[in-house]
Amino acid sequence: MEPAVPRAEIETRMRAFQEGLRSDGLEGAVVVQTTDLYYLAGTAQSAHLVVPADGEPILYVRKTLSRARRESPLERVEPLRSLRELPDALAAAGVPGGCIGLELDVLPAARYLDYVRRLVSYQIGDCSPAVRRVRALKSAWELERIRRAAEMLSHVGEWTAEVLREGMTEIELAAEIERLLRRHGHQGVLRMRAFNSDVHYGTIVAGPSAAVPGGTDTPIVGTGPNAAVAKGASSRPIGRGEPVLVDLVGAWEGYLADQTRTFSLGPLNAEFKEAYEAAHAILLRVAAEARPGVPASRLFELAQELAGERAGNFMGAGEERVSFVGHGFGLEIDEPPFLARGYDEPLEERMVFALEPKFVFPGRGAVGIENSYAVTSGGVEKLTSAPEELVEL
Amino acid sequence: MEPAVPRAEIETRMRAFQEGLRSDGLEGAVVVQTTDLYYLAGTAQSAHLVVPADGEPILYVRKTLSRARRESPLERVEPLRSLRELPDALAAAGVPGGCIGLELDVLPAARYLDYVRRLVSYQIGDCSPAVRRVRALKSAWELERIRRAAEMLSHVGEWTAEVLREGMTEIELAAEIERLLRRHGHQGVLRMRAFNSDVHYGTIVAGPSAAVPGGTDTPIVGTGPNAAVAKGASSRPIGRGEPVLVDLVGAWEGYLADQTRTFSLGPLNAEFKEAYEAAHAILLRVAAEARPGVPASRLFELAQELAGERAGNFMGAGEERVSFVGHGFGLEIDEPPFLARGYDEPLEERMVFALEPKFVFPGRGAVGIENSYAVTSGGVEKLTSAPEELVEL
Repeated sequence: MEPAVPRAEIETRMRAFQEGLRSDGLEGAVVVQTTDLYYLAGTAQSAHLVVPADGEPILYVRKTLSRARRESPLERVEPLRSLRELPDALAAAGVPGGCIGLELDVLPAARYLDYVRRLVSYQIGDCSPAVRRVRALKSAWELERIRRAAEMLSHVGEWTAEVLREGMTEIELAAEIERLLRRHGHQGVLRMRAFNSDVHYGTIVAGPSAAVPGGTDTPIVGTGPNAAVAKGASSRPIGRGEPVLVDLVGAWEGYLADQTRTFSLGPLNAEFKEAYEAAHAILLRVAAEARPGVPASRLFELAQELAGERAGNFMGAGEERVSFVGHGFGLEIDEPPFLARGYDEPLEERMVFALEPKFVFPGRGAVGIENSYAVTSGGVEKLTSAPEELVEL
Repeated sequence: MEPAVPRAEIETRMRAFQEGLRSDGLEGAVVVQTTDLYYLAGTAQSAHLVVPADGEPILYVRKTLSRARRESPLERVEPLRSLRELPDALAAAGVPGGCIGLELDVLPAARYLDYVRRLVSYQIGDCSPAVRRVRALKSAWELERIRRAAEMLSHVGEWTAEVLREGMTEIELAAEIERLLRRHGHQGVLRMRAFNSDVHYGTIVAGPSAAVPGGTDTPIVGTGPNAAVAKGASSRPIGRGEPVLVDLVGAWEGYLADQTRTFSLGPLNAEFKEAYEAAHAILLRVAAEARPGVPASRLFELAQELAGERAGNFMGAGEERVSFVGHGFGLEIDEPPFLARGYDEPLEERMVFALEPKFVFPGRGAVGIENSYAVTSGGVEKLTSAPEELVEL
């Protein structure tokens, strides 16, 4: 069986990650998060990937060894029977001491404290910045998969026109669109790195529900099905003249793409329409300014300037506004770069990001648009291809 | 607006949690995980819930305050503008020092280390055992919601008969069943507490795919759509004479229920049929033995004894067998009790658990059954009501 991720791909990633470890002053790393494992080892089996800053990594597998051996292009894939073996496993991989990195941004504290106790002869640092920097730069192979994920979203106009009916609930609309995504091979499971987060195909919300703020750092939250989930589609029926936001995350072979389009049953009022046009204009203008070297924060500031007199409703309303207008994505939906206040690092070629200018009108609704882009040598390439006009059905 | 969770419910939970904190030697706790917040404060907004071991808790909300105030029955719901305010917030809630608990089983290490730096005058302990013990005992109000979640799964026989066709892929079957769940009000988002875990409506797998082991601690893993997700439904077409496992998680107002049924297109061979009957017999016998006071581990041992000569295929095959036969659930799918080797704590009235005896035949398939039960004063009450026979379509 061919490994899912080609050997050359894994080798390039590993070299870049090891360079990152060295520049962060780490002698090595122990990677355990499923998505980072898939990225660096080509398998998402339960394992500890021990990476020396220089030398050959070893994947120590708890479950299932045979599957990890089939899936991973790494040369050294070994069993790990007990965490007691971990110090020896590190030594065997050429990391006998010094400061090693764990993924402190996602590793639960209890497991961290357990590793601290087991690895008494090591100092513990954070390897997640190094993983995230490497993962932010997509290879041609990864971009192919992201294109497939984006392609899945190109049908959203036909799908929505086919299934949206007056009086159907947001959840019923979601049910139909999620089914169509699945029938186009959507992997179902989507991953988000931030604590306390979950992403379920995207966010399908209409009218006042779309304007309900909530606990997530996103401009659109939604009422959700109940107060436990507290975001996304609700059981509120969709009425005529309401903006319907269809924000979807495509997924192909682990890789994601993000797109939002706005629909309505019957005409939208002039205020919604103008705001939609403003959002679209911001999208085009910010995308035109995006290129290697531009600080990601500058693109947020530009979007905010362009919002002008509508600034109070841009990316949320009033005090609930969020300070970003876009985010990177890849195997997770929240990867660098963040087109956000304070994120001053420049865009680089091979980054991808979703740009999502949206306006929220409390008690009434929200409109907006979102495309996914890849940063090229001279600008950006648009990855999502659904028609961009507001669709009044 | 009525709060989603009644005030009396929150008050009872809070008293039990505070008792748990005291018995674990904690002066207070700071709860931040979404699901624990919903359980203890009635809102899943982004917040720090400061709970003194004695006295009145304060919910400090980052985002969105107005929504948290509407949703939570707690008296004191205040803004938290910056984490710099946290020491004052603890003092204001009557926790001026001593050992406080954080949810160390889920809190990311980087956030834990940040809290350690900010809360220099406190010792940091773990409040997750106290939260999990309280959450394991369901109230009548919670059981009502779990019953609704279970009821949603009662249609699985009709649904599968209606949509299953020879040659359709596991993902296509999942697409149809997920849609039907959604149309019955399923909340979509499902939560699992363990690190590196995700749960997407359940697991729909057939024939050899169902027998593919993987990284999760479950008897059935599945090929999955790709090596990144590495579990669940795949793009393999479903053939005649293959056992089709339909393991579904219902969800209503945050609460879950878990059920598995086995189907086939055309007759199954004698070996699969006998194994299915053995699984069903184990289910009935173990459920009949379950009552308050019985150690949860004893039920796993009993199941294993009953598997008899089939023990090598029980709950996985060969070295990939897992050492449990059931698990608690509630707002998350992996709650105590665990009917597992080494989990010797006794069942208690008001616990709920899913019991899932399954047999795996490498390269060929898997069969099994799963029901959800509530522990009553004298035994258990079955919550999932779909017919239990093997269904040959």
